[in-house]
Amino acid sequence: MAEQEHEEHTKGGVYSVKGKEYTRDDRYITTRITKDGEDGFKVEPNRYRLVAARACPWANRTLIVRRLLGLEDVISVGMPGPTHDADSWTFDLDEDGLDPVLQIPRLKDAYLKRDPEYPLGITVPAIVDEQDGAVVTNDFAQITLDFSSEWSEYHREGAPDLYPEHLREEMDKVMRYIYTEINNGVYRCGFAGSQEAYDSAYDRLFTALDTISERLENRRYLMGDNITEADVRLFTTLVRFDAVYHGHFKTNRSKLSEMPVLWAYARDLFQTPGFGDTVDFDQIKKHYYIVHKDINPSQIVPNGPDNSLWLTEHGREALGGSPFGNGTAPGPVKPGEEVRPEGRADA
Amino acid sequence: MAEQEHEEHTKGGVYSVKGKEYTRDDRYITTRITKDGEDGFKVEPNRYRLVAARACPWANRTLIVRRLLGLEDVISVGMPGPTHDADSWTFDLDEDGLDPVLQIPRLKDAYLKRDPEYPLGITVPAIVDEQDGAVVTNDFAQITLDFSSEWSEYHREGAPDLYPEHLREEMDKVMRYIYTEINNGVYRCGFAGSQEAYDSAYDRLFTALDTISERLENRRYLMGDNITEADVRLFTTLVRFDAVYHGHFKTNRSKLSEMPVLWAYARDLFQTPGFGDTVDFDQIKKHYYIVHKDINPSQIVPNGPDNSLWLTEHGREALGGSPFGNGTAPGPVKPGEEVRPEGRADA
Repeated sequence: MAEQEHEEHTKGGVYSVKGKEYTRDDRYITTRITKDGEDGFKVEPNRYRLVAARACPWANRTLIVRRLLGLEDVISVGMPGPTHDADSWTFDLDEDGLDPVLQIPRLKDAYLKRDPEYPLGITVPAIVDEQDGAVVTNDFAQITLDFSSEWSEYHREGAPDLYPEHLREEMDKVMRYIYTEINNGVYRCGFAGSQEAYDSAYDRLFTALDTISERLENRRYLMGDNITEADVRLFTTLVRFDAVYHGHFKTNRSKLSEMPVLWAYARDLFQTPGFGDTVDFDQIKKHYYIVHKDINPSQIVPNGPDNSLWLTEHGREALGGSPFGNGTAPGPVKPGEEVRPEGRADA
Repeated sequence: MAEQEHEEHTKGGVYSVKGKEYTRDDRYITTRITKDGEDGFKVEPNRYRLVAARACPWANRTLIVRRLLGLEDVISVGMPGPTHDADSWTFDLDEDGLDPVLQIPRLKDAYLKRDPEYPLGITVPAIVDEQDGAVVTNDFAQITLDFSSEWSEYHREGAPDLYPEHLREEMDKVMRYIYTEINNGVYRCGFAGSQEAYDSAYDRLFTALDTISERLENRRYLMGDNITEADVRLFTTLVRFDAVYHGHFKTNRSKLSEMPVLWAYARDLFQTPGFGDTVDFDQIKKHYYIVHKDINPSQIVPNGPDNSLWLTEHGREALGGSPFGNGTAPGPVKPGEEVRPEGRADA
């Protein structure tokens, strides 16, 4: 796969290639941070910085899991702004445009510390070693699983088990399906380079949404009674659906708010501590509509839809279940990490 | 106003001008066809051809009014396809790409017959004199009013009075408001050349929709118990709202289907003979998404939304009123003028 197919991120501003089906570049830096440090990076509190733009669905996963597991005091977080140039995500929301810990203006600088010839896209989420300022990993699919399994010593009291041993076999299948059909499915619609590629991507996406909707009709969460990583992964696409995918990516058979089961499910999660409190709708809309200039040349950001609907009653408690199993909900958001008022659902 | 600001139609493919608020070029050929023939064109059956693309909201008005008044056997109709090049609407749906009566491939040819130096946009609707093949008028706002008043001798039995004398003063105000705030308001959003222009256009549009929604809450039609020209003018924008304006023009505070009063009102009209049977959703979507290449460079046409919702129950009969006053509904669509199956709500 060619570099210009890389996404969520820096691709020289070109996301849709004429005549081509969209294909995600899935090469990442797969170094892991583990208990035994077999890749050279041991789990250690206050050593690593998670760089995770609020706009990005892949980064959003890490923010949710970090909150649910209570890793905020162990792994710090850096936040690039919603837009970026063709070259790199930038710390333009921070004072003087520098990440306060890494003291760099561009995330790319941390990638170049890892490899001065780094040839791929500058993606979030990325975990940076604060000791030398170099990226350790940007392998988003592994990062959250490692938060669950490798960082267990540092989980808060009452942290849920998001990746339970006895469910892993089925979970891996469900999460694979969600990734190829839904998480990536919306991009396949939005960056289709031909009508045929779009048509087939659209059918594939809505087939998957209907399938998942059926699965959720009588169970509260994807794996049953409790929240797991699978729910986190579905949520980050659903929460962006009406705000950006429906219009910008043309995934418009219906809005999420017109799919009753998925809409109630998504609101249930949104209103659960650790989910909605990581979501900044303002940054999400700015990211997609401004960065993908090739599909929105005016870079005008729509004012709709009304995000306060996310706060309406969902009625899913009737299905039973308990979000955190034998555990408890996370406490309030760490001071300094709150979503800016203009990004909240009630903005 | 410069020519490049002309719309609905041929503008060299440029619709949104960076940094500029959208302004409609409202210069038209204002020659009228009248009973007394004071402009040189007398009302006469089988002399004039109405050229009216199904895609275009301004042309759609004329198709509805022609149907409601029963002028189908007196004024013939020509139909350019949904897309056009920078130069002219074309008769690409007709055999050999020629209008069967006018025997021209491009509507522009009829404009040039009128004026070899014709300097403005090639717009529909246009009325062409079949005797010499030259455009008589493209003044869309006057055409339908003249169908009501000047062509009365040829109305079908039971034709409604769409522009009743005693209501004209108020109707003119209502129709002016609908034109500036809604018909043109959606274009002001879609072709805004800056975020500021869009933001203000968006607020203005939804303020108007809320105002009109309130007016329609307890009355069946805009002017009371019966359909008038004012309803025709509001309908042609509403019927395009979810199919194109919501996504393509970013009028996305909500879909029409999420505005209960307007949605029921619009479905009531859609299901009334003379309205929905003139609407081709397929042509509408192709027109906007393919022609406005500057705001949709991929020219990909979305598959959503589900148009069959237009056929659902609306419940507006409970408000009383009678659509055609003392008159009757028009009969079936004239053979040969039916909307193609792929364009219908139940496609």
